[in-house]
Amino acid sequence: MVSKGGLHYWMQSEDFDLAHHFVHVALPKPGRIRELLAMVSRVHCGHLDRAYPLWQMYLIEGLADGRFAVYIKVHHALMDGIAGIRLLMRSMSTNLDTSLTLPPPWEVPTQRSKPRHLPLPSPTSGGLSALRSLAREHVGSVVPVVRELRSNVRDIIRRNPDFVFAGQAPRTIFNQKVSATRRFAAQSYSTPRIKAVAEAYGATANDVVLAMCAGALRRYLLDLGELPKRPLVAAVPVSVRREGSDHANEVSFTFCHLATHLYNPEARLRAINSCMDYNKAHLQRLSPDQSLVCSAFKLLPGALNAVTRLVDNSALANVIISHVPGPRRPLYWQGAKLCGLYPASLVVDSGALNITLISRHDFVDVGLIACRKAVPQVQRLLQYLEDALLELEATIHATVIPN
Amino acid sequence: MVSKGGLHYWMQSEDFDLAHHFVHVALPKPGRIRELLAMVSRVHCGHLDRAYPLWQMYLIEGLADGRFAVYIKVHHALMDGIAGIRLLMRSMSTNLDTSLTLPPPWEVPTQRSKPRHLPLPSPTSGGLSALRSLAREHVGSVVPVVRELRSNVRDIIRRNPDFVFAGQAPRTIFNQKVSATRRFAAQSYSTPRIKAVAEAYGATANDVVLAMCAGALRRYLLDLGELPKRPLVAAVPVSVRREGSDHANEVSFTFCHLATHLYNPEARLRAINSCMDYNKAHLQRLSPDQSLVCSAFKLLPGALNAVTRLVDNSALANVIISHVPGPRRPLYWQGAKLCGLYPASLVVDSGALNITLISRHDFVDVGLIACRKAVPQVQRLLQYLEDALLELEATIHATVIPN
Repeated sequence: MVSKGGLHYWMQSEDFDLAHHFVHVALPKPGRIRELLAMVSRVHCGHLDRAYPLWQMYLIEGLADGRFAVYIKVHHALMDGIAGIRLLMRSMSTNLDTSLTLPPPWEVPTQRSKPRHLPLPSPTSGGLSALRSLAREHVGSVVPVVRELRSNVRDIIRRNPDFVFAGQAPRTIFNQKVSATRRFAAQSYSTPRIKAVAEAYGATANDVVLAMCAGALRRYLLDLGELPKRPLVAAVPVSVRREGSDHANEVSFTFCHLATHLYNPEARLRAINSCMDYNKAHLQRLSPDQSLVCSAFKLLPGALNAVTRLVDNSALANVIISHVPGPRRPLYWQGAKLCGLYPASLVVDSGALNITLISRHDFVDVGLIACRKAVPQVQRLLQYLEDALLELEATIHATVIPN
Repeated sequence: MVSKGGLHYWMQSEDFDLAHHFVHVALPKPGRIRELLAMVSRVHCGHLDRAYPLWQMYLIEGLADGRFAVYIKVHHALMDGIAGIRLLMRSMSTNLDTSLTLPPPWEVPTQRSKPRHLPLPSPTSGGLSALRSLAREHVGSVVPVVRELRSNVRDIIRRNPDFVFAGQAPRTIFNQKVSATRRFAAQSYSTPRIKAVAEAYGATANDVVLAMCAGALRRYLLDLGELPKRPLVAAVPVSVRREGSDHANEVSFTFCHLATHLYNPEARLRAINSCMDYNKAHLQRLSPDQSLVCSAFKLLPGALNAVTRLVDNSALANVIISHVPGPRRPLYWQGAKLCGLYPASLVVDSGALNITLISRHDFVDVGLIACRKAVPQVQRLLQYLEDALLELEATIHATVIPN
């Protein structure tokens, strides 16, 4: 990626240096998951070198149980999480034998959808005229977006509990300046168990996942004496990606309050379910482009604040919770079965914790990434997520089989 | 280290997190020196996190021959190379048995010499009045420094070949903007062989080491078709540290031309010897403080240029060659013998290669650190250094035993 005249462009790299991008490392003894997470925490720190194409792949050997791990670091400027998973899925096979003939992942070309608007401005085309066309493309979005924003204002006046707006989030330890050091924690949770809870309450699996996060975050903050009285707000990325594309970023946002002020896990799940239903109904009224424009409006106060730092104690949201669909069948590469797919996302000032989840057929793989200093002992959340699922299961049994 | 009112201060860290500073890692198979150097190249990239005390220590296991390696990363704001080596030497023992009772290196306190001038300004003392006192302390240096600088001007007019001034260096591939990725290469060279060459020519071991670097750099640049017609200039740090102190930075500079335009290795050594003798004579006329002030004057044009970027193709020097005295006897820690002590220094814009050498009783340990992109295949220099020593040895035999 090069910068010219204030705009950024993609360039073909002339001297490709594979040894910089493909790295072979090993875990120290005893080679437990603990050592693996410590290594990923370390290699996840620091920026990718802008002098090279913005990706690296680590092959990690030395796990005590004979498995190996692969850590892939890709700049968000190249692709979002869904694009990354799609590319990974296309670089693996659902068939063990076929997988033996697969090339390394970096030799699999990305599948680009047709450009939706117009080609990105090239160094030769005038940047200004390109921007003007781009603006013209978005004029059609104005009416529905204004309608949506007007409805938001009505919701604020009526104090609709399902409407969450930017800046409603209470200040927490997650909303502070972050250090440069990261802590990564990861674990898998049973998909069938999550689906069973969802079914029992007429909610979605995503609602249950959010309720698990709510329960875990509530307990984690209680431990530290840091639970705010008002409920935490999660920013929940929503993909507006079309089928077939695994390139670039196509992500909108909704906000969800996590009802962390409520003691009862069932009540938390119901509040989350109701808030997400509201969000979905509003998103369905907008096209992907309109929802992008709309979320830009919603994020505007936060973005302005990030630049001006006028309100130092405002939090756009407390935590980003990103739930991404993963492979629905077992995958293989060169005869090795994929056992887990743990996302390590990014942490920014005032967003010291990110929870990303990938749903596979058998497990939901969770990756927690946090600033090591702002979010101490982040690995505790792994147990608390499991405990939150157990609590929700207990409420079903309490409801279904009253004594 | 915290910043307040534009000045930086040391602070006691309140929540010390050893797991951040002490890191346990392992080499992938086959665990050769090659894998070790690749790992050190990687962990040397990137900044230390300013939210923590500025050091980290890596214990590296998995070397095929059963040895282990320790990589220590310390910010230059904490200590210079000599201070680091002194601290390391005090954390080890010359006695195998005694070494079994030694604490880990981070528990050995630094040995601070008495403050030479006055205590560093504290957040409570007025910064300005402290600066004023510091300036007053340096007034005594004015006369000898002016005398020295006047002599420098005379040398320029008379074209004294032994006088090297800042900016005389030709532009080379080492003098470009650097990437964020580093390459580390390291090897040991026989101290007795180097001393034998020095003795044969009435030069110092340091002159021979510089001549080895000159020969290696000449051949490396010739390979790439990048050898400039004018000789390369090395910036050679000179310690002005007093006995007993192993704290902070106490380093002055001289410049040495490396006579890389000469084909004859003997002629290169004689030119280097003559230039370094000239430098030494001048340094001896100055006190440590005066030499610091003097080197500040010599570096001024380069520093101004770094800020203003007026002259984009000027190079203050082509390469930094730092030669540091190391332990004179074998050292042990917890029963393990120290086999090599390889310095990994720093690389900056327009200084893409740094050569640092530590002289021990039996070997001179060389560490090359380079920008991976600007200085390709830097490990070639390891062989060329050995070849340069062989060439110098051959010239002795040619001189001493004429056929």
